[in-house]
Amino acid sequence: MDPVHPEHLYEPTSGPVTLLFMNGSGTAPAVPRPAYRRLSVEQRRSQLLTAALDLFAQRAPEDVSLDDVALAAGVSRPLVYRYFPGGKQQLYEAALRSAADILERCFAEPDTGPLTQRLSRALDRYLAFVDEHDAGFSALLQGGSVVETTRTTAIVDEVRRAAADQILRHLGEPEPGLRLRMTVRMWITAVEAASLIWLDEDKQPGLDELRNWLVDHFIALLTATAAGDPQTARVTRAALKLETSDGPAGDLARRTLPVVSDAAHLL
Amino acid sequence: MDPVHPEHLYEPTSGPVTLLFMNGSGTAPAVPRPAYRRLSVEQRRSQLLTAALDLFAQRAPEDVSLDDVALAAGVSRPLVYRYFPGGKQQLYEAALRSAADILERCFAEPDTGPLTQRLSRALDRYLAFVDEHDAGFSALLQGGSVVETTRTTAIVDEVRRAAADQILRHLGEPEPGLRLRMTVRMWITAVEAASLIWLDEDKQPGLDELRNWLVDHFIALLTATAAGDPQTARVTRAALKLETSDGPAGDLARRTLPVVSDAAHLL
Repeated sequence: MDPVHPEHLYEPTSGPVTLLFMNGSGTAPAVPRPAYRRLSVEQRRSQLLTAALDLFAQRAPEDVSLDDVALAAGVSRPLVYRYFPGGKQQLYEAALRSAADILERCFAEPDTGPLTQRLSRALDRYLAFVDEHDAGFSALLQGGSVVETTRTTAIVDEVRRAAADQILRHLGEPEPGLRLRMTVRMWITAVEAASLIWLDEDKQPGLDELRNWLVDHFIALLTATAAGDPQTARVTRAALKLETSDGPAGDLARRTLPVVSDAAHLL
Repeated sequence: MDPVHPEHLYEPTSGPVTLLFMNGSGTAPAVPRPAYRRLSVEQRRSQLLTAALDLFAQRAPEDVSLDDVALAAGVSRPLVYRYFPGGKQQLYEAALRSAADILERCFAEPDTGPLTQRLSRALDRYLAFVDEHDAGFSALLQGGSVVETTRTTAIVDEVRRAAADQILRHLGEPEPGLRLRMTVRMWITAVEAASLIWLDEDKQPGLDELRNWLVDHFIALLTATAAGDPQTARVTRAALKLETSDGPAGDLARRTLPVVSDAAHLL
């Protein structure tokens, strides 16, 4: 690929090619403006990736062709190949890379306020992405796809690791031990599983309920680990101190009480 | 493959081929018995699968050749090909199939006694399998392997579904709703994640602690879902009734109390 070449030389438009050179020159005012926009290399790349991500969101990767991407972006197939000479595999990996960047940003959140509120906001962003990228999200995480390679699984793992690091940072433990790290990673996997089932079950329950439920699960897992691990107990106590009675943790505590009060024989 | 052909015709042994026909006939008593055993087609197939599963347990699938399997089983490469004419891919899928059968049996457990005890026994079997099949287990679940296909992911999914069905059966709810089903599947995914991290972290913590911890997580997830879902609340109450003070649930209740008693401001 040679990005200094003017790319319109390669690009078919709705009008004849010769029009391209007249466009904007003021010499042919009566001719309708063809659907052509001059984009920088970065803008064009980003446009193609957006179109690709959109297609991968709707169909399995094997059902998306470079022709489809060219059509969706309103450009020629050779142009797509110029930007992604490695063909669909390269395009898929680049689209996945840009999806990973979006997902990693989901868990970036200021260090203030109750943990459940920060987690809820992060989950809202994450679940919105799942909602939007639907089929692509399922195909990516369910595995067995033709475009899956060690590189694509490495990108997915990187997103998981980044999310875990963000959550551990919010828990305020500079040197999280094995049990705390495992708990956070188990919750992230459970969130992924919930997202896949949610897509599979016609997006039931609603996003708000799903988000609250996943936050409840986080508190529950943290508390269960805290029961056996002093570091997690310290972190959990500190986190619960910041929670309020009218927030998710208070709500969960009140709703849990009737279920566990029947189990007094266990104490 | 023609299973009626006497397979020793194809099989090299430690002695010359002609010895095969003398073995056991009593005409050559001084000759040491070659390392050859007559096996039925089923026995031979099972022997090859055991050898393959053992190799896949130690190395990534891409690092296991049919030669390795032949060597490990003490048979010729052509014999391996006779049973698995599709080569390594077919052998891998057959080995995975037999591993899936073992894993599905892990969660079969009589319907008596406290749920946590049933779950503990199932987890003991599951974690023993993870411990034994180490590298193969990781490679299989981490994805991106050359032998991964929609067929292999379907087999893995079938194991997950079978485990979920068994657990739901033990919960005694003939028509489990979405929230209960999601909770069980989220826990199964979390168990998988924990297994992978456990293998990655030099098998720390010990198997007993890991098993107890996963049981704790199950109770915690169930209770958190029970807080918002009447069916799960009913199931959880019934399960807790069968638990005893000196069992895992009693232990968890006592260890959780100090952590949550600090959070009285939430109520």
